[in-house]
Amino acid sequence: MEESAEHRHSGSGKMQLGLSVSDSDVSSFTPLVVLELADDTKAEAISWLLNRIRDKQQNGGAELLVNQLLFPAQDDQKSNPNVFVVGSTLQRLLNGAEDVGLFKEFQDGTMRGFTYANRESFKDFNGDGEGFLSDAECQYIIKHELDTLRAKNEEHVPGYPKLKLYPGKSVVRRLQSKGVLIQYFPLHNKEDLKRLSFSWYKKFKLSFQPLDDIRHYFGEGLALYFGFLEYFTFALVPMALIGIPYYLFDWEDYDKYVLFAVFNLVWSTVFLEVWKRCSATLAYGWGTLCRKKAFEEPRAGFHGALGLNPVTGREEPVYPSSKRQLRIYLVSVPFVLLCLYLSFYVMMVYFDMEFWAINTYHENPNIATSILLFVPSIIYAVVIEIMNLLYRYAAEFLTEWENHRLESSFQNHLVLKVLVFNFVNCFASLFYIAFVMQNMVLLRQSLATLLITSQILNQVMEAFLPYWLQRRRNKKVHKRMRRLMGDKELPLLGQVQLETEMNTYLGTFDDYLEQFLLFGYVSLFSCVYPLAAVLVVLNNITEVYSDAFKMCHVFKRPFSEPAANIGVWQLAFETMSLIAVVTNCALIGLSPQVKAYFPESDTQLILIVVAIEHVLLAFKFILAFVIPDVPKHIQVKLAKLEFDSLEALKKRKTLEDTET
Amino acid sequence: MEESAEHRHSGSGKMQLGLSVSDSDVSSFTPLVVLELADDTKAEAISWLLNRIRDKQQNGGAELLVNQLLFPAQDDQKSNPNVFVVGSTLQRLLNGAEDVGLFKEFQDGTMRGFTYANRESFKDFNGDGEGFLSDAECQYIIKHELDTLRAKNEEHVPGYPKLKLYPGKSVVRRLQSKGVLIQYFPLHNKEDLKRLSFSWYKKFKLSFQPLDDIRHYFGEGLALYFGFLEYFTFALVPMALIGIPYYLFDWEDYDKYVLFAVFNLVWSTVFLEVWKRCSATLAYGWGTLCRKKAFEEPRAGFHGALGLNPVTGREEPVYPSSKRQLRIYLVSVPFVLLCLYLSFYVMMVYFDMEFWAINTYHENPNIATSILLFVPSIIYAVVIEIMNLLYRYAAEFLTEWENHRLESSFQNHLVLKVLVFNFVNCFASLFYIAFVMQNMVLLRQSLATLLITSQILNQVMEAFLPYWLQRRRNKKVHKRMRRLMGDKELPLLGQVQLETEMNTYLGTFDDYLEQFLLFGYVSLFSCVYPLAAVLVVLNNITEVYSDAFKMCHVFKRPFSEPAANIGVWQLAFETMSLIAVVTNCALIGLSPQVKAYFPESDTQLILIVVAIEHVLLAFKFILAFVIPDVPKHIQVKLAKLEFDSLEALKKRKTLEDTET
Repeated sequence: MEESAEHRHSGSGKMQLGLSVSDSDVSSFTPLVVLELADDTKAEAISWLLNRIRDKQQNGGAELLVNQLLFPAQDDQKSNPNVFVVGSTLQRLLNGAEDVGLFKEFQDGTMRGFTYANRESFKDFNGDGEGFLSDAECQYIIKHELDTLRAKNEEHVPGYPKLKLYPGKSVVRRLQSKGVLIQYFPLHNKEDLKRLSFSWYKKFKLSFQPLDDIRHYFGEGLALYFGFLEYFTFALVPMALIGIPYYLFDWEDYDKYVLFAVFNLVWSTVFLEVWKRCSATLAYGWGTLCRKKAFEEPRAGFHGALGLNPVTGREEPVYPSSKRQLRIYLVSVPFVLLCLYLSFYVMMVYFDMEFWAINTYHENPNIATSILLFVPSIIYAVVIEIMNLLYRYAAEFLTEWENHRLESSFQNHLVLKVLVFNFVNCFASLFYIAFVMQNMVLLRQSLATLLITSQILNQVMEAFLPYWLQRRRNKKVHKRMRRLMGDKELPLLGQVQLETEMNTYLGTFDDYLEQFLLFGYVSLFSCVYPLAAVLVVLNNITEVYSDAFKMCHVFKRPFSEPAANIGVWQLAFETMSLIAVVTNCALIGLSPQVKAYFPESDTQLILIVVAIEHVLLAFKFILAFVIPDVPKHIQVKLAKLEFDSLEALKKRKTLEDTET
Repeated sequence: MEESAEHRHSGSGKMQLGLSVSDSDVSSFTPLVVLELADDTKAEAISWLLNRIRDKQQNGGAELLVNQLLFPAQDDQKSNPNVFVVGSTLQRLLNGAEDVGLFKEFQDGTMRGFTYANRESFKDFNGDGEGFLSDAECQYIIKHELDTLRAKNEEHVPGYPKLKLYPGKSVVRRLQSKGVLIQYFPLHNKEDLKRLSFSWYKKFKLSFQPLDDIRHYFGEGLALYFGFLEYFTFALVPMALIGIPYYLFDWEDYDKYVLFAVFNLVWSTVFLEVWKRCSATLAYGWGTLCRKKAFEEPRAGFHGALGLNPVTGREEPVYPSSKRQLRIYLVSVPFVLLCLYLSFYVMMVYFDMEFWAINTYHENPNIATSILLFVPSIIYAVVIEIMNLLYRYAAEFLTEWENHRLESSFQNHLVLKVLVFNFVNCFASLFYIAFVMQNMVLLRQSLATLLITSQILNQVMEAFLPYWLQRRRNKKVHKRMRRLMGDKELPLLGQVQLETEMNTYLGTFDDYLEQFLLFGYVSLFSCVYPLAAVLVVLNNITEVYSDAFKMCHVFKRPFSEPAANIGVWQLAFETMSLIAVVTNCALIGLSPQVKAYFPESDTQLILIVVAIEHVLLAFKFILAFVIPDVPKHIQVKLAKLEFDSLEALKKRKTLEDTET
C-alpha cells in the first residue's frame, strides 16, 4: 500500500527529510486546489483515493496530478499531515473544459461550446493553449473532475468497511458527507489577486468595477452579484437625487409624498426589467447564458435507505418524499409560524417602549429625553438583526434536516424560509405604523433608525469582525511558521497553511439578502423618508469596498460557480416590487393631500385608489411580458448558434448516410 | 423538358389515353397528399418541380413519389389539369420520421426520439415497419419534406424569370406565396374515417372521446383541442349541479350568490392548474412534450427587400422591424381603439333600446310587451356576433399587412387583437350593468339572452351552414362525375375532386375563442345566473358532436400539427381567471347579504373586500407556482430520458477517444 502512494511523487518518508525538497517537489506542477483529509484517515484509504485521482480516465480515474504537503512537526500544535495539492496538465484541463461544457469566444465573436477538436478556432487560443483558461476555470474543471470521480466495483472505502460505496456515485461527496474529506478549496493566485484588488478597490477614483476580472478570478456567480450591486446602486442615484431636495425643503410637510410614491412605482418595475436584460448581456459575454445545466448530483449531506433511483435505475440511498413532506409541514412550517409570532410579540414590546419614551419626552422635554426618543428604535433594530441571525442558523439546520436530495431544492426551501421571516421581521413594524396607526411622523423616524442601525451592524458583522479575527489568526500562523522554519522561504507551505484556516465564504446568499432588505426599505417606504435612497447609495458604495476586501483577503477563495442570472433572487425582488406597488398606492390613498380632493366621501377615494392599483398591477404584468428578457442582438446571436448547430448536425447526418 | 416529367411515372400524354389507366397507375403507391398548381402553370415549371420532388436527397431533392391526376375533359366546366398526388416509400418515411424528430414509444414504455438505426427497439415496430407510422404522421412527414425542399443554384423558377429563388430557402413556400402553388392538403383515409367517426360521434352512448384515435387521424393539435373541450365540459358539471338547485329555489333571491361566487373563485383557479397537468400527460403519451421545436421558417406571405439574414448569414427578403412597429402603432392600434369605441357606442344604443322596452312594458304590461323586454338583448347579441365576425376578418387582414416574418409572431399579434376586442365586445355591457348600474336583475336577464343567442348562432354558423353548403357542393360534384364517367368506379379521382373543393379548416383558433368566451361568461358572472354553467355544458356536449362532424365531413383534412400544450390559450384562460377573481370579489362586495354586515360603514366593507381580493390573488400566484406543471411520474420519465442521452453521449465520447 505504501508503495502506491509513493509511486509517482515523493511519499511521506522522503518528504520529512528536508522541507525544501517537499516544496520544490510540489511545484513540479502548478497547485490549484487543496484537499484536506481528516488527520486520522487510514493510510490505505489515502493511497486508494490518490490512486483513483491519478488513474487514467479510461480506467475511471480523474487523471489529475496530486501531491502531499508535509508541514514540519511542531511541538505546541500538531498540523494535519493529510493535506494535498491537486493540479493538472494543460491537455487534461482542455479536455475537462469540453466535459463541463465551457463556452468560449469563437473567432467570429460569438460564444460557442468549447471542443478540443476545434480548439484552434477559438479566439484566444494560441500555441498549446497556455493562458486560454482562466485560473477560476481551471479550478472549476478540477472540482468537476473530482466531484465526478465515481465508485467502480469497490464495496466500501478501503480501511472503512462501514463506509459503503455505490457504483456510479461520486466518491468525493461520499467521503465528504462521512467526514473523511474535511474540505477542498481552490488556492489564491497571489499575482492575480494583487492586480485584481488594485483595480477593484485600492485605487481611489470612482469607476466601474472590473467585472470581467472579477469573473476571471472568482467566477460568474460572484461577478453577477457585484454587477447587480453596482447596477442597483446606480439605479438608486436618480431616486437619491430627487430625495435630497424633498428632504431639505419639505421636512415637516408629510403631504407632498404622492409624487415620490408615483416615481417609486415606475422605478421599481423598470429597474428589474432592465436588470434582466443587463444580466443576459453579461452572462452571454461570459458564456453562461447558453450553457446547459449539468445533470444534478445529490447533495453531500443527503442520506436514506438503499433503494432504486427511478431515473438512473441504479441502487443508491433514497428518501421517500412523503417523509420529507411530513417533516416540512409538521415541523418546519409550525416552527416558522412560531418564529413569526415571536417577531410580532417583540414588535409589540417595541411599541410599548416607544410610547413610554414619547410619554417621558412629553412630560419632561429636554435633550436627554429627546435622545431617549430614538433609543427604542435602535434597540429594536439591534434585536431584529439578532433575531434574523439566529433564525438564519435555525432555518439552515431545519432545511438540512428536511434531507433534500438536490442542492437546488435545498436552496429553494432555505431561501423561502429565510425570506418570509426576514420580510416580516424587518417590515412588520413599519406596515403597522403606516396602516394601522397611520402615524407618518413615527414611520419616518422608525424607518430612519432601522435603516441606519442595520446598515452599521451589517458592515461590522460582515467585514470588520471577520477581518479582525482573520488578522489575529494570520499573525498567529505567521509567528508559528517563522519559529519553525526560520528565514527559509516556503511560500506554498505558508500560503496553504494560512488559507486552510481562513473562513469559508458561504456563497452570495447573505449578500443578496441584505440587498433585498435594502430594496424593500427603499421601494416600500422611501416616499415618506426620501433620504432612504441616499443612505442606501452610501451604504452600497462602502459595501462594494468591504465586500471586495472580504472576498480578496478575509475568506478562502471560493470555487467559481457558473451562473446565467441571479436565480431565485430575481423572483424575490420582483415579488417585493409587486408588494411595493400595493404599499405605495395605499400610502398615496392615505396622504392628506389626496384625501383633500374627496372631502365628503372616503368610499370614492378608496375605490379610485384600488382601481388605479389594479391598473398599475396589470400594467406591470404586461410590461414584464412585453419587454424581452434578452436584448435583440443577443437573441440573434443565440439563434445563430442554434442554426449553426442544426446545420452541422444535418451535414454530419448526410455524411454518415453517404458513407454507409 | 417533357421527358423528364415522364421519366418515372406516366406523363400527361399517356394519361389521357384511358382513365382507368391513370387511376390504377396512381395506385402504384398510396397517395397521401394532394398538390394543386394553378391551371396556367408553365410546363417547364411543373416538370422542374416534379423533378425536384422526385430527386434523390443527396442531390437536394425530397425523394418522394409524385404523380399527375388527370380528370376527363368536361364540356360545361373545366377541371384544373395540374393536380398531383404525392406518396412515399416506407423507407423514406421512416427516415423522414427521424428528420422531423418524431417521438415514439420505446420498448421500455418511455417515449424516445425515433432513429432509423434503432428502429427495432421501438414498441410497435414489426417487420419492415408497415403500420408503425400513423397516416397523419406520414402526411406530416411529407409536408415537412416538401416544405424543406430548398432552392439550390436556380436563379428563378423555370419559365418565370420574375419568380426569384434564394439558395437555401423553401421552394414550396415561395411558389405558394406567388400563387403558383394553390394548395396542398392531405387526403382522407375513408376506412379510418368511417371507424373514427363511428367511435367518436355516431354511437349513441355517453363516453369519453377516442382522443388517441383523433390524434392518430388528425394529429396532436386538434386532439388537444378536443381533450380540452372534454375536460372543460366535465369541470363545469359540478358547477352546473350546484347551479340547478340555486336556480330552482332562489330564483328571486339575488342575495344568496356569495357562496356561489366563492366557489367560482376556487374553481377557476384549480381548473386551469389541473388542466396543465392533464395536457402534459396527454402530450407526453403522444410524444410531443419532449420534442424540440424545429427552426422556424418565414411565413409564406412574408415579403421584403433583399438583405442579409443576421442568423443564417444568407441573402433573403428582410423587412425592417421599425417599419413593422410603425404599422402596428400608427395603424393597427388606432384601428383597434376605434373598433372598441364603436363597440361602446353600440352598447349605449343597446341600453337606450333596453330602457325603451322596459318603459313600454311598465306603461302597458301584457304578453306582447313582456316578450318585447327580451328583444333588445337578442338584437344586441346578434349585433355582437356580427361585429366579432367582421372584426375577425379585419384583424386578420391587418396582421397580414403588418408583414410578420414568423408564423408564431403573426399568431400572437392576431390572437391579441382578436381577444381584446372580443372580450370588450362581449363583456362590456355586462360589466356596465353589474358595476355602474348595479342592477342584478338586468344583469341576469342580459347574461341569459347573450349566452343563449350566441350559442345558437355559433352552432348555426360553425356547423350547419358549412354542412349545408358542403352537401350542395357534394351533390353537384357527384352529378358531374357520374355524367362523365358513367358507372366506372374511380374512387381516387372522385375523392380528390370532392376534397379539393371542400373548405379549408383554418385551425383551432375560432374553436378556442368560442370556449374562451364561454369560460368568461361562466367564471365572471355565473354567480348571478347559476344556469349559465348548465347552458355551457349543454352547448359543449352538442359542440363535441358538431365539431367532430365538421372535422370528418365538412372540411378538408388538415395537416397534423404537433402541439405540446394549448399554447397562447393557456395564458388567455389564465388572464380571464384573474379577471374573474377581481369580478367575483366585487360582486360579493355589492351583494346586499354582505352589505348587511356593515350597516354603518361602506369604507370598512370595501377595505375588507379589497384585502380579501389581494389575498386571493396572491394565493392564486402561489398556487400556480407551487403546483408542478408536469406530474411527478412524467417528470421522472423526462429526467430518465435526459439521463440516458447524457450517458449515451459520454459512452460515445469515450469510444471515440479510445479509437483515436
